[in-house]
Amino acid sequence: MTTEQAMKAALQHYIDGFNAGDAEAILSLFAEHATLEDPVGGPVREGRQAISEFCQRATASGAKLTLVAPITGSQSNAAAMAFIADTVRNGKRVNIQAIDVMTFDDSGKIASMRAYWGPEDLKIL
Amino acid sequence: MTTEQAMKAALQHYIDGFNAGDAEAILSLFAEHATLEDPVGGPVREGRQAISEFCQRATASGAKLTLVAPITGSQSNAAAMAFIADTVRNGKRVNIQAIDVMTFDDSGKIASMRAYWGPEDLKIL
Repeated sequence: MTTEQAMKAALQHYIDGFNAGDAEAILSLFAEHATLEDPVGGPVREGRQAISEFCQRATASGAKLTLVAPITGSQSNAAAMAFIADTVRNGKRVNIQAIDVMTFDDSGKIASMRAYWGPEDLKIL
Repeated sequence: MTTEQAMKAALQHYIDGFNAGDAEAILSLFAEHATLEDPVGGPVREGRQAISEFCQRATASGAKLTLVAPITGSQSNAAAMAFIADTVRNGKRVNIQAIDVMTFDDSGKIASMRAYWGPEDLKIL
């Protein structure tokens, strides 16, 4: 099982990858057949190609992420974090208050990512 | 589907129930056959009796919860929140940094709760 410390480091690398605008660095955190649902209730992207598109689009929009609390672990293969995403949607600069939950495979790669944020959590700046 | 606003209100009631030491108020938020996994990777409590025991034990320990960021929704039947629990475990006062994810049934009751926190997220005060 991936250690709590390793999971938290991966979530921090996810944040850092966004803030460096480095789509490849973000993508490299995910397992080959990972799933990504951002936001929860939206379409589920599955596999490297779909997740690569997500990373490219996110970094192209200039999205920056700021943690609002320490990353938390679990007693299993999951970790979570609360953050604000400062990004551009439909040509407008917005802040999104979000909570991401990630699960990991045994090699320390992200197996699934689910982002909890709804329409009310998006503020146009 | 339960609205984003109603889900967020339920999570706030969960916080308020702890802070009032009101086990019945917390229990009333859950569906009859809800599941509760706190922390994720620990035992899963299922049904009113098991969740009632959790609520009784939590309020008896004097656990108080403080949100560290606004509660977030989703585009589905789920909402999440990051908070600090100030409580007593094994006779010691501790702070636990946690993230809870709750899903809801159509009547607005909590169908499942999962709490993301690991050994590293518990600090002895």
